[in-house]
Amino acid sequence: MNERYLKFALEIAEKAKEIMLGYYGYKIDSEYKVDQTIVTKADQEINRYLIERVREEFPTHSVDGEEEKMGHSNYVWVCDPVDGTAMYARHIPVAVFSLALVVDGKSVVGVICDPFNSRTYYAAKNKGAYVNGNRIHVNDITLEDKRCIGNYDMWSLSKYDIYDCMRELSKKTYYTSIGSVARACTCVASGEYTVVIFPGSKGKNCDVAAAKVIVEEAGGKFTDLFGEDQRYDEDINGAIATNGIVHDEIVKVMKEKVRGMEE
Amino acid sequence: MNERYLKFALEIAEKAKEIMLGYYGYKIDSEYKVDQTIVTKADQEINRYLIERVREEFPTHSVDGEEEKMGHSNYVWVCDPVDGTAMYARHIPVAVFSLALVVDGKSVVGVICDPFNSRTYYAAKNKGAYVNGNRIHVNDITLEDKRCIGNYDMWSLSKYDIYDCMRELSKKTYYTSIGSVARACTCVASGEYTVVIFPGSKGKNCDVAAAKVIVEEAGGKFTDLFGEDQRYDEDINGAIATNGIVHDEIVKVMKEKVRGMEE
Repeated sequence: MNERYLKFALEIAEKAKEIMLGYYGYKIDSEYKVDQTIVTKADQEINRYLIERVREEFPTHSVDGEEEKMGHSNYVWVCDPVDGTAMYARHIPVAVFSLALVVDGKSVVGVICDPFNSRTYYAAKNKGAYVNGNRIHVNDITLEDKRCIGNYDMWSLSKYDIYDCMRELSKKTYYTSIGSVARACTCVASGEYTVVIFPGSKGKNCDVAAAKVIVEEAGGKFTDLFGEDQRYDEDINGAIATNGIVHDEIVKVMKEKVRGMEE
Repeated sequence: MNERYLKFALEIAEKAKEIMLGYYGYKIDSEYKVDQTIVTKADQEINRYLIERVREEFPTHSVDGEEEKMGHSNYVWVCDPVDGTAMYARHIPVAVFSLALVVDGKSVVGVICDPFNSRTYYAAKNKGAYVNGNRIHVNDITLEDKRCIGNYDMWSLSKYDIYDCMRELSKKTYYTSIGSVARACTCVASGEYTVVIFPGSKGKNCDVAAAKVIVEEAGGKFTDLFGEDQRYDEDINGAIATNGIVHDEIVKVMKEKVRGMEE
């Protein structure tokens, strides 16, 4: 059955890619200021299309989209139509479409489409992770390896302040904040990155539900910010995605150095 | 005379774009692990081409390239062949070619080419800043504006530890670390970003010499990490690029909260 869900998710991703590329090009050579309109339009169109298609194909399922939700079910299509909107609006080609089917809180199918490299990453539980038909795997390097790099996010409304963690971790490893956690997670799944740290909570299951199954099926590890399992059809307690090898070391630093945002 | 220098820099940028795109596509659909080879080849070929062309056109000038240097003169072509190599090697399309002519320590001509959006940003002193022939300007928003975003870099060999600064600044503004300071500076010049903070020193004039004149000609402000002027043909003391309006506020936080890396 997951095969049918995966096929469906890939079909939605194709449409999302088309919409994202369409608005991205819009006015790119005549307008250089931030254009929030293009983001809003792309986001809403993709979210709406998903809801229509789920209604047609799986009328008992529900949709948890960043822009719009529909229904209540233990089968939830969790979607971030454009993850990386701040980048997308600024014509920085680091933004992806992310869609997962979450059943009883567990991601069973995940698709992340990077329209700017024409790459679609996908996985179904126990069936391996792929990009454009090719199997992908996490890397096997440690934090000491000079090829090792990581990604993290921090913003004023994130649940935790991880600056002290990042100060500690960056002694060994270079970290970026590319502005799309889902895109960063595809890099973990494909072995290009080793770790992704994400201190988000409210509504942020939409950003990482697909990444959860893709990274795990690529041989990596994916937990909340403190190494615990969690549901992906409700608010999350942050997320860490790694190649598995470095996971405990990252979690240890989080536990020791994280601050609540109240402080 | 600067017009001739600008024309020359734009010609080099065209070649650099071709080389960057050529190696970027290389093996993109069959090899997902980090490929340091493509970076090294692109970097070296562009740097070599620049040296050959400077030797032909301006035999008395020198070249300060990240990969290779040539000669000693008060006319220095300062170049980062691929700024954002960690991104480029991981097929994240955030990497640019950057070239400046620095005369007696001052950037008089700058070109930054973003091959992935087919955009070339350029400026000559007192002649304005452009992208693909269109005039560009910094934005006029404050740190409190919700459209305001910034970029910064931190790595283990940077001269200063700015995590405490970033904790303070991120209370108001969202910050990314997109992995290429020169690309981030083009966003300041075009009004898409408001601030860029860069704590680099040794050899890092190569990364920002072109951005210096482009941001200033777009109406912005560009100084070292503490608001002072500096030379761009030698090691720098960090850099801050802003729309001008927020400059003093950023500098103030740097002065108050920065740590030396020894601490």
